[in-house]
Amino acid sequence: MSERYPKSAALFARARKVIPGGIYGHVTPAATVPGAMPSFAVEGRGCRYRDADGNEFIDFMCGYGPMLLGYHHPEVEAAAAEARARGSAFNHPTELTVALAEALVARIDFADWAVFAKNGSDLTTWAVQVAREATGRRKVLKVRGAYHGTHAWCSPGHGGLLAEDRAHVAEFAWNDEAALEDLFRRHRDDVAAVIVTPFHHPAYADSAEPSAGFVAAVNRLCAAHGALLVLDDVRCFPRLHLGGSHLAYGWRPDLAVYCKAIGNGHPLAACVGRAGYQATASRVFLTGSYWHDPAPLAAALKVLEVAERENVPARLERTGRRFVEGFLALGEKHGVRLRASGPAAMPYVRVADDPGFQKTQDLCAAAAREGVYIHPHHNWFLGLAHTDEEIDEALARIGRALQMQ
Amino acid sequence: MSERYPKSAALFARARKVIPGGIYGHVTPAATVPGAMPSFAVEGRGCRYRDADGNEFIDFMCGYGPMLLGYHHPEVEAAAAEARARGSAFNHPTELTVALAEALVARIDFADWAVFAKNGSDLTTWAVQVAREATGRRKVLKVRGAYHGTHAWCSPGHGGLLAEDRAHVAEFAWNDEAALEDLFRRHRDDVAAVIVTPFHHPAYADSAEPSAGFVAAVNRLCAAHGALLVLDDVRCFPRLHLGGSHLAYGWRPDLAVYCKAIGNGHPLAACVGRAGYQATASRVFLTGSYWHDPAPLAAALKVLEVAERENVPARLERTGRRFVEGFLALGEKHGVRLRASGPAAMPYVRVADDPGFQKTQDLCAAAAREGVYIHPHHNWFLGLAHTDEEIDEALARIGRALQMQ
Repeated sequence: MSERYPKSAALFARARKVIPGGIYGHVTPAATVPGAMPSFAVEGRGCRYRDADGNEFIDFMCGYGPMLLGYHHPEVEAAAAEARARGSAFNHPTELTVALAEALVARIDFADWAVFAKNGSDLTTWAVQVAREATGRRKVLKVRGAYHGTHAWCSPGHGGLLAEDRAHVAEFAWNDEAALEDLFRRHRDDVAAVIVTPFHHPAYADSAEPSAGFVAAVNRLCAAHGALLVLDDVRCFPRLHLGGSHLAYGWRPDLAVYCKAIGNGHPLAACVGRAGYQATASRVFLTGSYWHDPAPLAAALKVLEVAERENVPARLERTGRRFVEGFLALGEKHGVRLRASGPAAMPYVRVADDPGFQKTQDLCAAAAREGVYIHPHHNWFLGLAHTDEEIDEALARIGRALQMQ
Repeated sequence: MSERYPKSAALFARARKVIPGGIYGHVTPAATVPGAMPSFAVEGRGCRYRDADGNEFIDFMCGYGPMLLGYHHPEVEAAAAEARARGSAFNHPTELTVALAEALVARIDFADWAVFAKNGSDLTTWAVQVAREATGRRKVLKVRGAYHGTHAWCSPGHGGLLAEDRAHVAEFAWNDEAALEDLFRRHRDDVAAVIVTPFHHPAYADSAEPSAGFVAAVNRLCAAHGALLVLDDVRCFPRLHLGGSHLAYGWRPDLAVYCKAIGNGHPLAACVGRAGYQATASRVFLTGSYWHDPAPLAAALKVLEVAERENVPARLERTGRRFVEGFLALGEKHGVRLRASGPAAMPYVRVADDPGFQKTQDLCAAAAREGVYIHPHHNWFLGLAHTDEEIDEALARIGRALQMQ
């Protein structure tokens, strides 16, 4: 199959000489399905991108989330370029830092303040520190298999870590309120925070939305024990709700972290919090050389404006449904049993009865040959650039891929 | 004095409502010398920027380092904009990731591979993890007062930290090889890494270049004990030497981290390492949503090209000397005893016999009134945009500031 990707293969060979592993980061299907997927990109427009070999894909990964409005969205790029023309790393912030904090506080119901950084990790970790400072306690309770970033306390890796890195991190299963209650009992008076994602989107597994009982239990236990609820909304915001994904499921967070789609690809992360933690937050060290760079802040202000104007969550819900329902119908037509999970705006579809993901990988490889990029073991992302026409074109291509299974 | 900064003051008042502390990050002199310095920027060109009130400054902080070639350098901005027009956060890296890794490997004598991130912190911390993975040991030895980033093991803050965060970090004094030798003795067979900056540039203190004996001892002890030497070249590169600041002082690093000036303001960090650690490095988790964004990578390739073409280190050494020597001569002329430290390209000048930094703060406040931005308790940065004419203009203004002391 690699005759479709000779330039990707040649670039990967160059990369392996000068980069450990050749490509780092993300769960790249090019590695798990060698030769069946591209591994280097060249250019993107709307919901399509071209790889190093000139193959064009209708993209359902959106850069693993960031491309909410589509590659090279003209309004966002113009806003960022205008800010960039005035400067980048200054000795001081600009008004844009204040304006974006005000914009988030105005839009997120529980938020009274905001800070900004470059990685989601920067701020999930900082939020945990704010919770520790606020409570004087140590323990953080997280969901098993949930990804909260690269920092040592939560990294999914093993290399170079110490036992001490996770001395005060305890895990419970998603949707298992009894297990969480048990952890609160076991670590009585020492739980600083519970951190959750709006829905559960582990790699190599189906997504799982929260049960109403689980959400109620998490909210209740945090309040009862004086622990902070940290919502890691890095991957979801603002695809599920413009006011924060907590509103889609009923979470009552004290702190929430946004990233990925907030700047439509311009590097930015944000943490917002309740008024009661503002003084505490100012005592937890926070800095970065590029954190006041005006361009991503200007991009984020424009993203919020466009997302509201176009009512992006409702739009993605509708086009996501069209895509997933069409996908499942094609599976039935071609006799391939499929299984869909997750919200429509961030769906995941795989072949059923496929514990090793081999059949799902084959399906995604066939879809890539037809010019549709879907990931075999990571949730997908809809974007504003996925029009009904693009969805229908993608489904026609996926139909051909399913026929080959 | 605050009549010069009413708009900065108004923006700060807005900021305090929606951002913990109003401004986070860096040691901002606007906070330590209230009303005497600007706190919000608007626009920069070359070595000058305008604050929110329209005051213009000849800038010797360069955004705390990043602005190596000057604000809005046309070649760098064109290269970044061209890359940006093709896309930002893709599902894959682009050829630029490989090309920049190749460019660093070609220029840094000991480097055989490179990885990229967004913050210096991302990679000083990752480098320490690589050293732990490579050695199977735990201890990291660092210099007291040295800044290596925001992560818990090295953060200069206290809020929200745990005892466990620093369980395996030990400190020694700069230029004290006996203290380092003692730490190696005390933690025999458990030292994974020693981390140093090329020269010592603590806040609220004079800078200190390394003694030849200290450099030799660090090199020798790391080699003798099988510990990795990590060079935190985040703040210096490439001001002191185009091939890495280790060449300016004789350090023999195994891993080195670059950031700040590498993209002339475009957010990027890099870690390079010796061939022997490449396989190890691939086992230490590393990812980020925006880490393959082509624009900062394209900017960095252009920065390397321009820095070589213009021989930036030699140029900054010369203009830095002109500035520091002129500054000291003015002190003598006006009867203000001054003290200079650090390399000429990154100098620091303060009032002598000034333990509380009060006189130095007054001098910097007076310089700000005259339109020169220098920092009372952090090292300064020269840039390519500091021509002899700009230096002489700045010195004329500083002369007026000294006259008022």
